[in-house]
Amino acid sequence: MPCLVMKFGGTSVADLARIRNVAQTVKRAHDEGADIAVIVSAMSGVTNQLIDYVSDIAPLADLREYDAVVSSGEQVTSGLLAIALQNLGVPARSWLGWQIPVVTDDAHGSARIQRIDVDELRRRFEEERQVAVLAGFQGLELGRKRITTLGRGGSDTSAVALAAALEAERCDIYTDVDGVYTSDPRIVPRARKLDRITYEEMLEMASQGAKVLQTRSVEMAMKHRVRVQVLSSFEDKPGTLVVDEDEIVEQALVSGVTYSRDEAKITLQSVPDRPGVAAAIFGPLADAAVNVDMIVQNISAENGHTDMTFTVGNADLQRTISVLEKNRDQLAYRELKADPNVVKVSVIGVGMRSHAGVAQRMFQALAEKGINIQVISTSEIKVSVLIAAEYAELALRSLHTAYGLDSA
Amino acid sequence: MPCLVMKFGGTSVADLARIRNVAQTVKRAHDEGADIAVIVSAMSGVTNQLIDYVSDIAPLADLREYDAVVSSGEQVTSGLLAIALQNLGVPARSWLGWQIPVVTDDAHGSARIQRIDVDELRRRFEEERQVAVLAGFQGLELGRKRITTLGRGGSDTSAVALAAALEAERCDIYTDVDGVYTSDPRIVPRARKLDRITYEEMLEMASQGAKVLQTRSVEMAMKHRVRVQVLSSFEDKPGTLVVDEDEIVEQALVSGVTYSRDEAKITLQSVPDRPGVAAAIFGPLADAAVNVDMIVQNISAENGHTDMTFTVGNADLQRTISVLEKNRDQLAYRELKADPNVVKVSVIGVGMRSHAGVAQRMFQALAEKGINIQVISTSEIKVSVLIAAEYAELALRSLHTAYGLDSA
Repeated sequence: MPCLVMKFGGTSVADLARIRNVAQTVKRAHDEGADIAVIVSAMSGVTNQLIDYVSDIAPLADLREYDAVVSSGEQVTSGLLAIALQNLGVPARSWLGWQIPVVTDDAHGSARIQRIDVDELRRRFEEERQVAVLAGFQGLELGRKRITTLGRGGSDTSAVALAAALEAERCDIYTDVDGVYTSDPRIVPRARKLDRITYEEMLEMASQGAKVLQTRSVEMAMKHRVRVQVLSSFEDKPGTLVVDEDEIVEQALVSGVTYSRDEAKITLQSVPDRPGVAAAIFGPLADAAVNVDMIVQNISAENGHTDMTFTVGNADLQRTISVLEKNRDQLAYRELKADPNVVKVSVIGVGMRSHAGVAQRMFQALAEKGINIQVISTSEIKVSVLIAAEYAELALRSLHTAYGLDSA
Repeated sequence: MPCLVMKFGGTSVADLARIRNVAQTVKRAHDEGADIAVIVSAMSGVTNQLIDYVSDIAPLADLREYDAVVSSGEQVTSGLLAIALQNLGVPARSWLGWQIPVVTDDAHGSARIQRIDVDELRRRFEEERQVAVLAGFQGLELGRKRITTLGRGGSDTSAVALAAALEAERCDIYTDVDGVYTSDPRIVPRARKLDRITYEEMLEMASQGAKVLQTRSVEMAMKHRVRVQVLSSFEDKPGTLVVDEDEIVEQALVSGVTYSRDEAKITLQSVPDRPGVAAAIFGPLADAAVNVDMIVQNISAENGHTDMTFTVGNADLQRTISVLEKNRDQLAYRELKADPNVVKVSVIGVGMRSHAGVAQRMFQALAEKGINIQVISTSEIKVSVLIAAEYAELALRSLHTAYGLDSA
């Protein structure tokens, strides 16, 4: 029997009517003959409510207790969906992380799945055609038998990990959008839904600001070659398939244009241009758990001094400044400039591996609109630029057109 | 070390402020040196909300899924209370039914506790002075590793069972009333809080309408001789101790006067007065799971026929009538009369074992007020009468005075 994993996010199970609707969707797939495992999130809003409870009761809560509290939302929806399925005549049962078990490490609050024991699920597929409804986002740390959670968006990871363990034909991620777009449709009206996208591109899209899938779930899908489909739980039509590169016949040069406003630029002016200066700057930041993204060191300009520019997440900006000021004597910079009014725009596509001139086309398109590029960084399948935040929409639309992504 | 079990009901953990308040109460007991295990209910309203979800999604839900859903409320409060305790510097951890485990039978929705494994709790009392915070109302059915729940008010039973397993010095049931009263203070203004009451009396009080403790928890306390205290979580003062008879020095004749409006009276007129008639009537009712309470068979009056009167719970009235009508040919009664406008009033006291005239005082007090007694039933420590519902308050107050229970 082909095996299908279906994952439904918080908006898809937001109330009883939607849970009944999900049950109908699952029943259709079951009627077609597949073995079905379903992963559910908590009703939308519930997990946030539980997190608020925990942070209100104590700012630095024991993460093991945090996990016990916040994992309860998925317990409710998994039970309710199992009942809704039974009510439609579909054999089903709910499974909690500890019942399967979904074994994780002990990094409470952001645990990683180590293995999923699927023998019993498989037996029930075969003997009873029973649908397995798993509470997403949660696992079990075997040593102390405590509930763990996988971190934000962890249900996507639960779904992909289960699909890998079951060697499922596909992992369908039902959400409130109908697929992965070439850009954010709220900003770029001519953005198109992609039929297919490679793991590598999806990973870059997720890292560069597209919120449709959790980065870690894409990494896992890529590693285990799980075919993932992102689709709408409210419309009955195909979504976007996230697949291996060789499943995509005609590969566009660029598949998507993303942006991230969660950026802040730091410039240290006139630091001594000698070996070890980068280590001296970024060592203390790493120790303070600041994630540094783009880095540019200017060509040495004046008598052995240079400027160092880099970006950090907005949330880390104050911490970054205080770390750098604390180390000012040692770093010997003349001035520290911080600018949160920046946005990172990226073009992403595996096609650029085999084509030159992709970055050049980006620089030209931005230059034509008079947009100044502050920092550039590239990877094998991505070019990112940092620009002033006020140009974000213009840049996105211009690049979308420049790479021929606009819908007809 | 003395060991104390403390149980907090839904109103005691209704919001974060109250959970913090509970943490303070637990900390005081912990500071005094006792080993502490706490049982918590769900925040008030949460379990009802979850039950509504289940019954909305399917009227006849799989009780295993029902249990998975409705047990989640206690999971939240146990985690939150553990965090609140840690925040006060008290070592604590939460425990779910499956983690202990609290082993139950497989009667999902109203499971019975078979054993509680307390070795690990004891080890943590000794080594870390850690407070154990247990999610009440839930257990684990070992065969299929499914969550079970204990039925309405099951957290009281969880607490008493845990106190028995830990051989605790006392089981304190914190609730929204400050103890057990001689009668309902909303009806009898001169009702008094009892300092002590025997298990037997408490059991009769719970069965006869007093809602302060779940009947099953009292049965369990009596069986294992667990000293139970009912007290308020909002006022810092002693409550009512439920103890063995020999712990009560001066035993009143009557300890309490209770009432239950959840009664309906059925009279079958002119049934054949021959052997087996009672079995013919009550057999089909038992098969239909109707719980028959008081039964009176009149003395045979007219040519081999008699009247049969009995009471059932109001909720069972329609079912009772339809069962009796279905069997009308066989039972051969002339007429079926049903009256839901009745109330059962009971006086309860172990003192009546050794004193005659207790029932007589009741009949006299009611007669003086012109209240007609429709049915009488007695047990070793209880006299119950069925009267017209409109006399309930008058009867309660008169009996309270007649047995010398009024406060000064």
